[in-house]
Amino acid sequence: MNISDIGEFGFIRAIQDHTIVTPETVTVGIGDDGAVYKTTPGMEQVVVIDTMIEGNHFIIGKTATWHAVGYKAVASNLSDIAAMGATATQLVLSTALIPSMTVADVKELYRGMKDICQVYGVNMVGGDTVTARESTVITVTVLGEIEKDKALLRSGANVGDVVAISHTLGNSCAGLDVLLQQERGYEELVKHHQYPQPQLALGRLLVSMNCHCANDISDGLASEANEIAKASGVNLILDKDKIPFSPALEQWCAYAKKDRYRYAFGGGEDYELVFTMAKDDFYRLKKQYDDVTIIGSVHPGTGMVLLRDGDKESPLQPQGWTHF
Amino acid sequence: MNISDIGEFGFIRAIQDHTIVTPETVTVGIGDDGAVYKTTPGMEQVVVIDTMIEGNHFIIGKTATWHAVGYKAVASNLSDIAAMGATATQLVLSTALIPSMTVADVKELYRGMKDICQVYGVNMVGGDTVTARESTVITVTVLGEIEKDKALLRSGANVGDVVAISHTLGNSCAGLDVLLQQERGYEELVKHHQYPQPQLALGRLLVSMNCHCANDISDGLASEANEIAKASGVNLILDKDKIPFSPALEQWCAYAKKDRYRYAFGGGEDYELVFTMAKDDFYRLKKQYDDVTIIGSVHPGTGMVLLRDGDKESPLQPQGWTHF
Repeated sequence: MNISDIGEFGFIRAIQDHTIVTPETVTVGIGDDGAVYKTTPGMEQVVVIDTMIEGNHFIIGKTATWHAVGYKAVASNLSDIAAMGATATQLVLSTALIPSMTVADVKELYRGMKDICQVYGVNMVGGDTVTARESTVITVTVLGEIEKDKALLRSGANVGDVVAISHTLGNSCAGLDVLLQQERGYEELVKHHQYPQPQLALGRLLVSMNCHCANDISDGLASEANEIAKASGVNLILDKDKIPFSPALEQWCAYAKKDRYRYAFGGGEDYELVFTMAKDDFYRLKKQYDDVTIIGSVHPGTGMVLLRDGDKESPLQPQGWTHF
Repeated sequence: MNISDIGEFGFIRAIQDHTIVTPETVTVGIGDDGAVYKTTPGMEQVVVIDTMIEGNHFIIGKTATWHAVGYKAVASNLSDIAAMGATATQLVLSTALIPSMTVADVKELYRGMKDICQVYGVNMVGGDTVTARESTVITVTVLGEIEKDKALLRSGANVGDVVAISHTLGNSCAGLDVLLQQERGYEELVKHHQYPQPQLALGRLLVSMNCHCANDISDGLASEANEIAKASGVNLILDKDKIPFSPALEQWCAYAKKDRYRYAFGGGEDYELVFTMAKDDFYRLKKQYDDVTIIGSVHPGTGMVLLRDGDKESPLQPQGWTHF
């Protein structure tokens, strides 16, 4: 059965169960002209929006399942919320679907979204669905909250700060190559690509530990670090040999003859955080959250990123995913 | 020059001026991972989302200009906010653009959005832009506020209420026919199609006048009235001869041999409001806002809409735009 057989209200009926995780915050959920929800007194509100397009961001049956697409469409938004240091609260989405898409596939897409919403306590409160012409388009908006004046901005990096990242880099793009080359194994890399984990808990810790500046790594470290340098009006110096990689990535690079730094600097969709803070604060953070690594430092400058490799320093240009 | 020539940050620079109308509510606007804004203490928050796709919702050069597309993409969302009785505050959007789109066209698209945001006092606080494959996709999310427990829902119609609508019906779809048939004149109808006016002021009046239930007429009156009847668990009886039409629409129907009721019941994108309230409250409303007309009444029932035509009553089935 295709979605063209069940119509708009059949579609809403098919997807509207298990959408509300924190009912005390939701006055009106899916099914009216708009959703109505409560905010926490004294908090500022955060809003992010992100779109995934079939063929550009995923290929069903090759790089993703519908379940993974739903999960990741929400994860990329939650990663932006994490990069602001906020908690996520509500979600609305718009799906442009091909009329011949099966109801089973639509349910899988929404199951993926609901699964990650359950994990992170986010309500799916509303949406819109239209007919796509050639390829599925999924746009998700996530709302969140943060204490007044505490949002982590790209423009906050201070001279003297350390530059640090969470976990390791490049796994997602390496996982994409595994899938595109139809290799077996490397499940950890594939999982990073299909089911990325937004760093919401770390984002909250960063706020409490006086972090000055954060960005999520969605377009490769080179691009994100340059954004911070430009927005903050400083130079970042990154130490090439301090960038952490997973054993799985090292193994894949050895096997497939790939450059791990190309993955780290130019690969997309890691959804880790890159952030800057005073060194003392970083070590306090590290006691509570071990999976963070210093990769560089903040210096007076004009908005450049320099990569230190042994004795040499050279500019690291943005080389991530470009959107046009 | 095309947008592929200026890149993502060139794109952001090209569109980010004149985006903030009420700076006192915005902490962080366009340019970071997310936007941060303030809400009014004691108010509940409203969120709506709506998507327009090139080829389905508009044809550039035939039914719309890029300026009109931008205006209407926001108008359809503001209409949903109006139907909730809320005020609109913030906006985020996602555009999937063809790389060969000219920078001039992109600016026109955004100028259309900014123009309507200025009129209704809405801030454009953030967005996402990706590459479209074949057709432009524009998704807008608007945030709003309303007093606690005052949102106008589809489920609130009470037996004994009158059913009323704002202004006249069918103009937008008639305007679309004018454009598709490449007729000259009928500027009023064309303007209704290209630059619909969301009924935000009326929505706020409805809240203050004890309105029980409202829906915006985006998919034709038949569809919207059926939604109210079903959600409220009542029957609506509509009087065919009470439905108001504009002189321009009557003139077009006479000329083009079109059925004005087909436009009213099945035409899309009028963005008027259909609402129910006690008769006394309606006449209080009418003193302050004359462009409202009683077209029917609410009766005990099982969720049907009946159309009264002289002595006859027959079910009015949803016949508006279906989304699959």
